[in-house]
Amino acid sequence: MRYFEDYQVGRIERAGSYQVTREEVIEFASRYDPQPFHLNDAAAEASPIFGRLAASGWHTCAMTMRMLTDAWMEDGHFSLGGNAVDELRWMKPVYPGDTLSVEAEVLKTSVPRSRPDMGFVTFQLTVSNQADEPVMTMKVTNMQPRRSQD
Amino acid sequence: MRYFEDYQVGRIERAGSYQVTREEVIEFASRYDPQPFHLNDAAAEASPIFGRLAASGWHTCAMTMRMLTDAWMEDGHFSLGGNAVDELRWMKPVYPGDTLSVEAEVLKTSVPRSRPDMGFVTFQLTVSNQADEPVMTMKVTNMQPRRSQD
Repeated sequence: MRYFEDYQVGRIERAGSYQVTREEVIEFASRYDPQPFHLNDAAAEASPIFGRLAASGWHTCAMTMRMLTDAWMEDGHFSLGGNAVDELRWMKPVYPGDTLSVEAEVLKTSVPRSRPDMGFVTFQLTVSNQADEPVMTMKVTNMQPRRSQD
Repeated sequence: MRYFEDYQVGRIERAGSYQVTREEVIEFASRYDPQPFHLNDAAAEASPIFGRLAASGWHTCAMTMRMLTDAWMEDGHFSLGGNAVDELRWMKPVYPGDTLSVEAEVLKTSVPRSRPDMGFVTFQLTVSNQADEPVMTMKVTNMQPRRSQD
């Protein structure tokens, strides 16, 4: 079990990998982001941004969350939930066939006055593909339980 | 077809609604965010944040994108893709049985020097539930095609 007090600024953890498949890219996009360049090869080829079929940026977020939760749960980690995302940048397209991984660095921590039983931990996330190119970065803030103050 | 030039600062559009179901909350969480409070009633009841089974925040993002893309496509809208999210706040839990809707206000527009064929449009998104309580807010920046400059 990991608590707020275990997150030191500068601490880095890595999670992944995640294999991006064509089936999953199309399945996610069909359900949540049915823009043509996420569904259809011809539309993606005509896109000045993508060039070929590419994952929804929200799908990249979802795949990133899965990599993190898998790592956390393996490690007995417990989060109380997320509450903020800042400076999310979709830097490069994510394509079927890519292998993603994520690095999470603790940027800052704080305890809200109103809830001394929990603390905020802000992570800088960098999601990279198999060529080590960052495809997405963001700062995400989670609530973590505090160790008993007794 | 809607172009960059059609987005005036202050323009507001509304999209939705989206019915949040228990099945979909569990299905999304199982795949992308398998933390116990998104999957399991007892764990959610024990949570100081959620109190009962609640959707992953990334699922709320995905449902929001679906509301927006449905509205855009109905309206002949065309986006070239998203590139940034800022100040995303998960303000209240989203529960099975909720009905979500989204309001998108144009906050600012700009044309990058390097790509005069496209423009950036930043929207303030406010996602609300059936009680008109904001559950999520964010600023999202999309790339839009420009009208031919000929």
